Amino acid sequence: MSGNTLGKIFTVSNFGESHGPAIGCVIDGCPAGLELSAEDIQLELDRRRPGTSRHVTQRQEPDQVEILSGVYEGKTTGTPIGLLIRNQDQRSKDYSAISDTFRPGHADVTYWKKYGIRDPRGGGRSSARLTAPTVAAGAVAKKWLKQEFGTLIRGYMSQLGPIEIPFDSWDHVANNPFFAANQSLVPELESYMDELRRDGDSIGARIEVVAQNLPAGWGEPIYDRLDADIAHAMMGLNAVKGVSIGAGFESVAQRGSEHGDELTPDGYLSNHAGGILGGISTGQDITVSLAIKPTSSIRIERKSLNKAGEPVMVQTLGRHDPCVGIRATPIAEALLALVLIDHALRQRAYRC
Amino acid sequence: MSGNTLGKIFTVSNFGESHGPAIGCVIDGCPAGLELSAEDIQLELDRRRPGTSRHVTQRQEPDQVEILSGVYEGKTTGTPIGLLIRNQDQRSKDYSAISDTFRPGHADVTYWKKYGIRDPRGGGRSSARLTAPTVAAGAVAKKWLKQEFGTLIRGYMSQLGPIEIPFDSWDHVANNPFFAANQSLVPELESYMDELRRDGDSIGARIEVVAQNLPAGWGEPIYDRLDADIAHAMMGLNAVKGVSIGAGFESVAQRGSEHGDELTPDGYLSNHAGGILGGISTGQDITVSLAIKPTSSIRIERKSLNKAGEPVMVQTLGRHDPCVGIRATPIAEALLALVLIDHALRQRAYRC
Amino acid sequence: MSGNTLGKIFTVSNFGESHGPAIGCVIDGCPAGLELSAEDIQLELDRRRPGTSRHVTQRQEPDQVEILSGVYEGKTTGTPIGLLIRNQDQRSKDYSAISDTFRPGHADVTYWKKYGIRDPRGGGRSSARLTAPTVAAGAVAKKWLKQEFGTLIRGYMSQLGPIEIPFDSWDHVANNPFFAANQSLVPELESYMDELRRDGDSIGARIEVVAQNLPAGWGEPIYDRLDADIAHAMMGLNAVKGVSIGAGFESVAQRGSEHGDELTPDGYLSNHAGGILGGISTGQDITVSLAIKPTSSIRIERKSLNKAGEPVMVQTLGRHDPCVGIRATPIAEALLALVLIDHALRQRAYRC
Amino acid sequence: MSGNTLGKIFTVSNFGESHGPAIGCVIDGCPAGLELSAEDIQLELDRRRPGTSRHVTQRQEPDQVEILSGVYEGKTTGTPIGLLIRNQDQRSKDYSAISDTFRPGHADVTYWKKYGIRDPRGGGRSSARLTAPTVAAGAVAKKWLKQEFGTLIRGYMSQLGPIEIPFDSWDHVANNPFFAANQSLVPELESYMDELRRDGDSIGARIEVVAQNLPAGWGEPIYDRLDADIAHAMMGLNAVKGVSIGAGFESVAQRGSEHGDELTPDGYLSNHAGGILGGISTGQDITVSLAIKPTSSIRIERKSLNKAGEPVMVQTLGRHDPCVGIRATPIAEALLALVLIDHALRQRAYRC
Repeated sequence: MSGNTLGKIFTVSNFGESHGPAIGCVIDGCPAGLELSAEDIQLELDRRRPGTSRHVTQRQEPDQVEILSGVYEGKTTGTPIGLLIRNQDQRSKDYSAISDTFRPGHADVTYWKKYGIRDPRGGGRSSARLTAPTVAAGAVAKKWLKQEFGTLIRGYMSQLGPIEIPFDSWDHVANNPFFAANQSLVPELESYMDELRRDGDSIGARIEVVAQNLPAGWGEPIYDRLDADIAHAMMGLNAVKGVSIGAGFESVAQRGSEHGDELTPDGYLSNHAGGILGGISTGQDITVSLAIKPTSSIRIERKSLNKAGEPVMVQTLGRHDPCVGIRATPIAEALLALVLIDHALRQRAYRC
Repeated sequence: MSGNTLGKIFTVSNFGESHGPAIGCVIDGCPAGLELSAEDIQLELDRRRPGTSRHVTQRQEPDQVEILSGVYEGKTTGTPIGLLIRNQDQRSKDYSAISDTFRPGHADVTYWKKYGIRDPRGGGRSSARLTAPTVAAGAVAKKWLKQEFGTLIRGYMSQLGPIEIPFDSWDHVANNPFFAANQSLVPELESYMDELRRDGDSIGARIEVVAQNLPAGWGEPIYDRLDADIAHAMMGLNAVKGVSIGAGFESVAQRGSEHGDELTPDGYLSNHAGGILGGISTGQDITVSLAIKPTSSIRIERKSLNKAGEPVMVQTLGRHDPCVGIRATPIAEALLALVLIDHALRQRAYRC
Repeated sequence: MSGNTLGKIFTVSNFGESHGPAIGCVIDGCPAGLELSAEDIQLELDRRRPGTSRHVTQRQEPDQVEILSGVYEGKTTGTPIGLLIRNQDQRSKDYSAISDTFRPGHADVTYWKKYGIRDPRGGGRSSARLTAPTVAAGAVAKKWLKQEFGTLIRGYMSQLGPIEIPFDSWDHVANNPFFAANQSLVPELESYMDELRRDGDSIGARIEVVAQNLPAGWGEPIYDRLDADIAHAMMGLNAVKGVSIGAGFESVAQRGSEHGDELTPDGYLSNHAGGILGGISTGQDITVSLAIKPTSSIRIERKSLNKAGEPVMVQTLGRHDPCVGIRATPIAEALLALVLIDHALRQRAYRC
Repeated sequence: MSGNTLGKIFTVSNFGESHGPAIGCVIDGCPAGLELSAEDIQLELDRRRPGTSRHVTQRQEPDQVEILSGVYEGKTTGTPIGLLIRNQDQRSKDYSAISDTFRPGHADVTYWKKYGIRDPRGGGRSSARLTAPTVAAGAVAKKWLKQEFGTLIRGYMSQLGPIEIPFDSWDHVANNPFFAANQSLVPELESYMDELRRDGDSIGARIEVVAQNLPAGWGEPIYDRLDADIAHAMMGLNAVKGVSIGAGFESVAQRGSEHGDELTPDGYLSNHAGGILGGISTGQDITVSLAIKPTSSIRIERKSLNKAGEPVMVQTLGRHDPCVGIRATPIAEALLALVLIDHALRQRAYRC
């Protein structure tokens, strides 16, 4: 309830810092009887893992997950599932140089103002590393949703900086480091990233996430609408600055006669709603878009302040993702899965 | 907790249906000692009220609020504030014609699938009328924030369908029915709406909301980030399909050297962050954008189904907003105020 | 979440003060399709109502409930149920005499210290009058539990001050103003109360509540055990100083070979557990005992302080229950029903 | 929210099973800046630890706690504190014999009925071993309360089966394995326990917990009263069957002129209220009593069923506490500390 728990009935309580001893989470509310192994979770963690291509941070982290509880003889018991990931590559070093200044666009300044304490170790709690426990929990949610409803949750990158990446086929997504659904654009993406690294700069991205095969009826109006909870989860992902559902910001210029999805006995004729009407799932695909800002940790020097409030120039060296959007796809999928399982269970409570 | 409560420590529990006896809410967690009268709340309700121009629904509702509890001798007591608004213009009529069919793009179909019950009275619970209690609660939040921190929360319409409305001055907003911050465009907006009404169609809109004068440090990472909770609240507003903070979807094509707001002893040099970094307020203005879809209740005939699943043509007559975005500005302000007071109090709990 | 909401998935948000315009609550999370009328609720409110015998407060309150929302054509819709009870007998009077002093054993002093505000109107928010909305919500819970599971929730007074009242038959409970399950003791109880009133004093009582016919499996260990949530609800009832389940405080002197309820194919051989093991219902009767303290508002003069901290003698005149325990039985039943429906729905979510 | 989290703003999410790899918890909402080391926590864990005298279970568990997050350079950072305790003495063995039958008075039957899954490893999740993470979290709460308010939270055993143990001095509590505040009775307690072990039976106990030095004003009426939340926490402790505050069940036979604590300029003249009026702390000592039932795992043969529903005789061998009450004192202290810190922070939020 104090900010680090996601969900109401299937909840994930996240802990850890980027360079502390370990990160992890406690999942509470997973139904009993789901077959679950560490491998199920590892599979998703490996998709998010750093160091897997030259376009992401070179930090080496196996992100090996250990199931501490809640599973007996290969099945969930209904009790809390404790998940633990030890931090390996902490590179003990002297943080004194950077612990006194703030990176423009980074949370180090707001954490300091909020807590009155500065934990400079790799961004501490504000690091995108803390999405690993989210992905781990999402793996459990994904598995349950697939088993119970056949729900399939997938995502892809639709834009990298100025380069739009039209969807071609889901088959491509696993075959390139960008989660692009269009293999033909991959060389262009690689060149763009190589140049960006040479410049010491970073770039934004746009991610799409889709959930297929889920029933109508999930979502609790008025405030805990399904889209509201999706927006909450997604905007809570590091670096996200915008979230939209279905037609999203294109709805602004649409007329009602264009936007409203017509129904026929064979199904809806379009999906501007993105699978949600009045905060409740329609049964169509749920489609979500995320705008991800460029990383703040760049090599280019920028104006900033130190803790004393004096002007300094700040340049961030070290290992950083030049485009955090590249690794965002599996995280966004996990978040969508976590929101959906929570609402699936809530709906079961009210209408068994 | 069951979907109709917003906030964690300053909470609003909303009840009512569009054409039932009354709507209202219970505010729990308002600090004691705030001067509060029904007039304070009425002022904001009147900004949202239907029937105030020819461009909105002609339903006549005085939206008179009654304070049922929580205020003694003109001051809040710290106990729950019950707010009641009686529905007046319910136009008792025969709903049997429409109660059997669904409007494309409307929540009537999802409510029916969720609850197994159809309440056809003016959209029942899914009606935008239920934003009135939110606005009423927001008035209390606004007043407290202004008094405690000098926080000012204001909004305006920045786009109506195809017409962009550049910000000129806050002074204009109260002088036109669109909440446009640019009086010179009002005639164009009026013509556009008049034509739309003749067509029997509806249109989308874009709304901006801004909070000024608030301290750094509000927001609870990881999941209950300030921007995440804003996104939750805003996406929970009827017809919203997209929410963004600061540079929003423009971040996608920005480089880090452009996006990251530089700090100087005189303040930040830009505000792409929209006042939030790492989910925590920076002290800069918080800037939020909303994409609002066109109303689904239009006069133009469209394909749909009846409850038996048979194809029908649906045409919605009666009093409806052709652009729900027009009345959305005060609601979005209220939602931002509700999120901010909740986090202001949470921050006080942890760092008094 | 801020103290005035009970339950997690079937929630009751309570508002109002003893002498304000109205009291009431919002029920969120009631499943759709339950037949519900104001009469269903009124029946339970009438059992709790003041002024029904000479042994309780003579305040005249019809406690007429109005359903504001959540019911359409006689059935719940699944949306929030707003309940309103107007205060009638507010006896406008001059509170200045008592608003400056504190009653020994009364919450007026702690409310003042907590909120920094004194609402002297009949005890304000701390009045037992605020149990009426709880009873109203409990009526809905009772009805649903009975319909879904045949669950029967009943209570009785088992001790009035020094007089123990052995259970004889449920049939007696409705036939006397004490909710005694033993009609033969009623004359003794009446004499005792008459004498007490003459003395201007008050007295404690003990109440038993029993739930029958519910399945095994309700309750969420570790912290939200069924007995823990029952204890929370019951200790939250005005004047309650102790709560026990099953053998309760007698367990202290019991041996395991005596306490543990043996199982046979024909059922359990005893019920020291009170129907709950490890925080989960066993399927046996749930048995709860409450210790209720004597009212603090008595005619006998007692030492106290005024707001300036100076010693004063305080004597409370006016209409007060000399034994709040007398009207506690229907309230305790309502609270048990509210806890049970919440856990029934939670269990459905996890194991449909 | 799903049952394994305690508190609303200072929350503890507990995970683990008795014989799984590890147990632990995530504390969320601890204010930044508190000096905290593993030793601070270990001290309290050692008070609860098994195997420290012949009167408790002989299971050998060092209960070594590791702080995984939330502490940097010896101080809390305001982010979640992950605590991990590895299970050591798991005695891998064949559970097949006992996994098919149920112990009278034990939760194994209700867990099975609830989850449809049987985890026979040492009681699985229902084991009192899961109070260790509660004690660990309580140590943090205790330290903060002491530092901020000088609050002192202590407990003692006041009755062991038939033997009442009158309070003599706090100094004795640490000097005997029973947490008795009366050293002269210890030989009698030891003989009693030795005889009990020979009989293969178990016994109940009564525990008192006291909080001293806390301000008036903590507690959120109506439902989340301070006493209600204490009752919830305490009744959630394994084997507790009754909870009372102040005069508790003795209030039943008290008159108002006796029970109500008179106020004088020098303080209250008595403390029947147990430090709480109307659900809000008075500033007096908070006094809580717990009734703890005898352990269900005894050597004496008892009637029960197997999973097929057939009658069996059950006898529990192995290492078990013959009186779980003996180790309950530090746990009850921890629970009281957790409730108090939660309300201390809630009160700060509302009245800074």
